[in-house]
Amino acid sequence: MANIKTAALDLHKQLAGKIQVENKVQELTVENLSLLYSPGVAAPCEVIAQDEKAVYDYTWKGNTIAVVSNGSAVLGLGDIGPAAGLPVMEGKSFLFKAFAGVNAIPLVIDTADPAEIIRFCELIAPTFGGINLEDIKAPDCVYIEETLKERLSIPVFHDDQHGTAVVTLAGLINAYRYLEKDLTQAKVVVSGTGAAGSAIIKMLHRIGINEIYGVNSSGVINPATPDLYNSVVQALCPILSAPTGPTTLAEILVGADIFIGVSAANLVSAEMVKTMAKDAVVFALANPDPEIPYGIAKAAGAKIVATGRSDYPNQINNVLAFPGIFKGILAARAPKITVEMQIAAAHAIAEMVSDAKLAEDYIVPNALNSKVADQVAQAIIDQVEK
Amino acid sequence: MANIKTAALDLHKQLAGKIQVENKVQELTVENLSLLYSPGVAAPCEVIAQDEKAVYDYTWKGNTIAVVSNGSAVLGLGDIGPAAGLPVMEGKSFLFKAFAGVNAIPLVIDTADPAEIIRFCELIAPTFGGINLEDIKAPDCVYIEETLKERLSIPVFHDDQHGTAVVTLAGLINAYRYLEKDLTQAKVVVSGTGAAGSAIIKMLHRIGINEIYGVNSSGVINPATPDLYNSVVQALCPILSAPTGPTTLAEILVGADIFIGVSAANLVSAEMVKTMAKDAVVFALANPDPEIPYGIAKAAGAKIVATGRSDYPNQINNVLAFPGIFKGILAARAPKITVEMQIAAAHAIAEMVSDAKLAEDYIVPNALNSKVADQVAQAIIDQVEK
Repeated sequence: MANIKTAALDLHKQLAGKIQVENKVQELTVENLSLLYSPGVAAPCEVIAQDEKAVYDYTWKGNTIAVVSNGSAVLGLGDIGPAAGLPVMEGKSFLFKAFAGVNAIPLVIDTADPAEIIRFCELIAPTFGGINLEDIKAPDCVYIEETLKERLSIPVFHDDQHGTAVVTLAGLINAYRYLEKDLTQAKVVVSGTGAAGSAIIKMLHRIGINEIYGVNSSGVINPATPDLYNSVVQALCPILSAPTGPTTLAEILVGADIFIGVSAANLVSAEMVKTMAKDAVVFALANPDPEIPYGIAKAAGAKIVATGRSDYPNQINNVLAFPGIFKGILAARAPKITVEMQIAAAHAIAEMVSDAKLAEDYIVPNALNSKVADQVAQAIIDQVEK
Repeated sequence: MANIKTAALDLHKQLAGKIQVENKVQELTVENLSLLYSPGVAAPCEVIAQDEKAVYDYTWKGNTIAVVSNGSAVLGLGDIGPAAGLPVMEGKSFLFKAFAGVNAIPLVIDTADPAEIIRFCELIAPTFGGINLEDIKAPDCVYIEETLKERLSIPVFHDDQHGTAVVTLAGLINAYRYLEKDLTQAKVVVSGTGAAGSAIIKMLHRIGINEIYGVNSSGVINPATPDLYNSVVQALCPILSAPTGPTTLAEILVGADIFIGVSAANLVSAEMVKTMAKDAVVFALANPDPEIPYGIAKAAGAKIVATGRSDYPNQINNVLAFPGIFKGILAARAPKITVEMQIAAAHAIAEMVSDAKLAEDYIVPNALNSKVADQVAQAIIDQVEK
């Protein structure tokens, strides 16, 4: 890790920005400038003033999104503020371009007030074809995204919620395809009820799983007492299963088919995995250190193990989802990213793994697979056209 | 013009955005991604969290600015709104990159409220090394810029005010260099007291010109009655000369040495130019149609005539100023663009015209001269180091 740290600092300093602006016309002539700027530029301005939708035809809007963050929940680093969050948002923009050709502009903003983040996104909406919310702390992020989805006519997507949920679902679909079992019959335990955990729980319920338990630092969520919880957990209560009385993570894992951790390092022991059902599936996604290390979970009898790390098999990496999702939604010019689109995206990712390649240690495509984004984009477009 | 209009629409449609995002690293490997994104990206985040100034070293901030507009005063088109203003802001970004290598991100925002524009700029300040305000209507733009200059620690520049003033001053310096006369002794009439006119009047006063008359649609400004005017004109009253009673533009032009128009087409007749002093200088900068056409002003006896048009000699074009000003201020990492820097920039532009080339019809360098921006940038850097 010390080497990665030094190498990352060196590379960041050398680049001084992972992305930059590129002009699409290189030749500077009087004629070019008179078309691209004054007086010619008045023509597209007047057309858009008459018909605002034309902005998609004559500007960058149709292929450009904003990556908005206030730096309040950055990676495993926490609330480090906007300036310190900028390297991550630039990195996100880098990934959007590299995997899907989408122009993504990092905008780190200096506010902790959810109302102000919402207003900021309303203000910039004319400039962009979509907004990717990133690394904003829970529960604010859920409220912010839901409000913006109502108010804006461009798609808004909080990747920490839905990107994670999409790739997790893709992994689960293929895990159960491999096991030749019915995913909807699984008993699922989700550790972590913040941005990612709440989105995963909602997504799994939506595809028909009925037995889902949520766990956070207060123990297993009791959906009969919603008043004990914050707004995000309250919204989950109608779809969560009820434990019998106060229950620990260890207790609820007994007999579970699937564990999904989006919480913190080392919450799950080998002993706990041993109590899970036959063919147990363990997705230990806390980063950089999972809820249980890959090797220990496997040794304890888990049939399929996934983590967020690139140095073990089955990496659940959001980069499989967000570039293609935005590429598709921009191409379709749809105003919203719906749950149906997200589920279609998960299936598209899952289908990138052929029957021949599907294995315990190969349930999701490689994060560097450059074909995934196009497949995901096409799935989104097909869903819009339905 | 019909041809330019069609060609401009075609080119804008073909490009669908005059600028785009470019990744500085092209090769997608596990190693590169682990440095540019998780887990390596945490290293620069942590350094910046400890020392916010480090954001200039590890991100795009040191060479990236925002071009902010609400589309309320776009070119000659007026208040066409943010979406319709986007082609112009993209064009501005194009020019920043083409002439100075500065990354400029167009941000058109959906508000008419000056307080909200100010707050927006405060919010985005962590992302950018500077802010170029553009095409925001007067008098709001003056208040917005002044407030932001006080509040922000990154440079803020309203090009419609100061860019125009800088290039106008460069032209006047060379006009009087050609005439071998003392600019500070000139009687100057400025038609237009909005963003550009007010900035020009302040700049000319600052370099030592004492006899300046301001004219707008209410006639020649009477500095003895400031209450009659808006806040921008009120601020000019202490430095404007007083006419003798109610006076028209035609009356105040009698005996004037310099006319500067940043107002509207065809306000000045050949007869009015004939009444000006010997060696009259006429800068008719209204766009696209000047206060008096170039040929008519010359035929009426004006010694030196400048316009905003590229199809006549002596084009007063802001592109001579703003790319280099921001290139310099970013390189120097100075928190403000001062009047002294702007005057230095004007001299740098003027000096690009050699004694051998200086002529009635060659008082400013060609707008396409790619060396100007570097000269201007160096002048800014020298001024910061003083």
